Amino acid sequence: MTDVNTILAEADKALDQSLDRLFDLVRIPSISTDTAYKEDCRRAAERIVADLSGLGFSAALRDTPGHPMVVAHFEPKGATGKVPHFLFYGHYDVQPPDPLDKWMTPPFQPEKRTGKDGIVRLYGRGTADDKGQLMTFIEAMRAWITTTGTLPLKATILIEGEEESGSPSLIPFLKQNRGELSCDAAFVCDTNMWDEKTPAITTRLRGMVKDEITITGPRVDLHSGAYGGPAANPIRILSRLLSKLHDKNGKVTIPGFYEGVSDLPKEVKVQWQKLKFSDRKFLREVGLSVPAGEKGKGALEQVWARPTAEVNGIWGGYMGAGTKTVIPSQAHAKLTFRLVGKQKPEKILKAFRAFAKAEVPKDCRIDFAAYGSGSPASEIAGTSPLIRKSAKALKDEFGRDTALIGSGGSIPIVRYFKDILGMDSVLIGFGLNDDALHSPNEKYNLSSFHRGIRSWVRILAALAR
Amino acid sequence: MTDVNTILAEADKALDQSLDRLFDLVRIPSISTDTAYKEDCRRAAERIVADLSGLGFSAALRDTPGHPMVVAHFEPKGATGKVPHFLFYGHYDVQPPDPLDKWMTPPFQPEKRTGKDGIVRLYGRGTADDKGQLMTFIEAMRAWITTTGTLPLKATILIEGEEESGSPSLIPFLKQNRGELSCDAAFVCDTNMWDEKTPAITTRLRGMVKDEITITGPRVDLHSGAYGGPAANPIRILSRLLSKLHDKNGKVTIPGFYEGVSDLPKEVKVQWQKLKFSDRKFLREVGLSVPAGEKGKGALEQVWARPTAEVNGIWGGYMGAGTKTVIPSQAHAKLTFRLVGKQKPEKILKAFRAFAKAEVPKDCRIDFAAYGSGSPASEIAGTSPLIRKSAKALKDEFGRDTALIGSGGSIPIVRYFKDILGMDSVLIGFGLNDDALHSPNEKYNLSSFHRGIRSWVRILAALAR
Repeated sequence: MTDVNTILAEADKALDQSLDRLFDLVRIPSISTDTAYKEDCRRAAERIVADLSGLGFSAALRDTPGHPMVVAHFEPKGATGKVPHFLFYGHYDVQPPDPLDKWMTPPFQPEKRTGKDGIVRLYGRGTADDKGQLMTFIEAMRAWITTTGTLPLKATILIEGEEESGSPSLIPFLKQNRGELSCDAAFVCDTNMWDEKTPAITTRLRGMVKDEITITGPRVDLHSGAYGGPAANPIRILSRLLSKLHDKNGKVTIPGFYEGVSDLPKEVKVQWQKLKFSDRKFLREVGLSVPAGEKGKGALEQVWARPTAEVNGIWGGYMGAGTKTVIPSQAHAKLTFRLVGKQKPEKILKAFRAFAKAEVPKDCRIDFAAYGSGSPASEIAGTSPLIRKSAKALKDEFGRDTALIGSGGSIPIVRYFKDILGMDSVLIGFGLNDDALHSPNEKYNLSSFHRGIRSWVRILAALAR
Repeated sequence: MTDVNTILAEADKALDQSLDRLFDLVRIPSISTDTAYKEDCRRAAERIVADLSGLGFSAALRDTPGHPMVVAHFEPKGATGKVPHFLFYGHYDVQPPDPLDKWMTPPFQPEKRTGKDGIVRLYGRGTADDKGQLMTFIEAMRAWITTTGTLPLKATILIEGEEESGSPSLIPFLKQNRGELSCDAAFVCDTNMWDEKTPAITTRLRGMVKDEITITGPRVDLHSGAYGGPAANPIRILSRLLSKLHDKNGKVTIPGFYEGVSDLPKEVKVQWQKLKFSDRKFLREVGLSVPAGEKGKGALEQVWARPTAEVNGIWGGYMGAGTKTVIPSQAHAKLTFRLVGKQKPEKILKAFRAFAKAEVPKDCRIDFAAYGSGSPASEIAGTSPLIRKSAKALKDEFGRDTALIGSGGSIPIVRYFKDILGMDSVLIGFGLNDDALHSPNEKYNLSSFHRGIRSWVRILAALAR
């Protein structure tokens, strides 16, 4: 096998051309949410197809009711025995660039600029989300193919064009092409490093289930003078219900809520402590200072490894200017439960509803309106070979332990890959917190791009072994 | 002194003409909220001025920045010694008649119709609110003057034209004419009987003070995935705060809230029990069945004699269709406190705010926005001579004990008369619960009108003694 250093040298040597190819892609305004850019989306997809075909992939643009998908396969040459097969995912569509007047350079005229801090940054819409990221694995594969004539494993590339507009075509597409797209695992390149020096793999994602409640008291809105006292006020019932969701230690009180939630393993705890995350700074950035979650748990653990019951919206009665002395007929709230471990969305929803019903007087009503059936948390053990190999490859590149981190939110693609294609996802990306995704002056550090490419060169080598 | 029965006979004899005069007044669409009817409001006022002048009042139309007032004075002839002086209040303006298509006969073409139940009703906008009511005391005075050539006391009549549009000119007008309008007491004819057989005097009105709170947590709306757990959620803080306002017995928990609230005197309790008020029916009419207020107190006592803390509106976070996984920056609620006895609005507001502040974590903020300074409760003792005489007169007319009732809401005029003119108000009216005030097919029973006139004939006699 060719020494990985030879391939890395090729990647280094080709960096300027890699950058040219990225900039060519960024110049295409492939905004998926705006139909005015439909042809641009197609052009971006076609460009990737042509590029991958040139590298020896069997690549094709695949039409959907929305924007086309790019699917490309590479069969390694001279492979013997069972060769691992992985899917690599990214998306070529980008967010709209508004407000345009806040950009220092036009969003679709990418530019490399060196800051006063000496850091070289690549500016332009999509440099970080996700064109720059998806090009890291494509350019790494190019370096492999240029140097060795092949890849060390079987690769399928799936580049979507609707990620920024809710991926409406994705589920049907995955279902229709289940056989073709099912691999040993997926590598999703759309996440961040821990910081600019520390590589990261996101191994935990919280699940989620949502509910909406409506409490109905009196048949109609009542005058609070004529009825205040004897008449049930649904806002008061709702407030009481919501206030009972947590005990004074911040724990959720719904019976059975913590079933399937395990304490954080000691080694994970130790690893996270090493990240030296500042709860103080995290809260200060949003104008807060007092940790509000479960007592005795740090912010990282709360966000990455603990379930929540949050109220996302509440409304009822008179909400206009001035006053109206009304006892409203109805009060409403929207809730989300973030899930971890083995918590089952359907069980959580059922338990919450039983809990809520018990809080409503017998002459009042409670109605529920769920949105979707929810999704459980997903987690890959840090000890799994995929994670170990990838983490080692990243450490070799960055000279630092790879952080195995969590994400408090959901990443839908991970759920779809698991549910439809039956495969786990490994989330590796090289973005940074200050990349200004979805904002003016989006950027991707040149070092993210360069070391991203080098990292994938190493990961491909590691996975082949 | 002329026998009161002579005067009552005159009132009976003149009933048809009284009705004609009422109908002439109802025909004028004096809608105060709609500028298109500005001239009609003036016409209604002028009509009353002319009518009272014809009776011997010194009556005048008095301009204001809004609709004019009618002020009229009557000096009794041949009076010796100190003559009592009372003010009689009503309003000539009416509510808009919409929705017009729901009226069985046009709102400003009054009609007398006998129902299948044999009850004769006077239909038309303003028949009950308040033209029919104010005409009861004017027609009673007419009967007195026709029969005896005078009234048995000094009378000032104040008829307002902006009651249905918030009385913007009233406070300045009362202040500018304090000397002229200050009397021994006011009689306000704009309330209901207990039921069609039972006359009533409203002797208790709850006071009120309002507040609005805004709780600010994070500086901006946060993603509930990225921050759910450690970040304070203002909706949760608000819910907890509101849920703590009442204990499990329905009592308000704000320290000092019940200062100045006395238990109901036994004789009042006994009197109210005799009214045979059905809590069950009262609640059933609005779709409820479980009394929600203070445990151990009936609905009447709760509405007439107990203070409340009610939430009139609540809002925060995402309230649209579907879901948004947000932890909002702010949550809001509007509250009203109904007051009784000697509760002081400013003290209640202060105590509530201290209570609320204590519920807010130190990194969050609470802001308050009061609307006005509130008003204390008003109450006239059932033992006061004014009430005793009026109640006796009503009993003589109806052959039933007069109910001394309360009202859960405020009647602003009572507060203004007390604060600006230093006089108590006696609230006597002949409306019924089914009069459809502010609704299509507003009506006033002929018996309300007729016995209303007769009642005032008796009350004037009683007050003169």
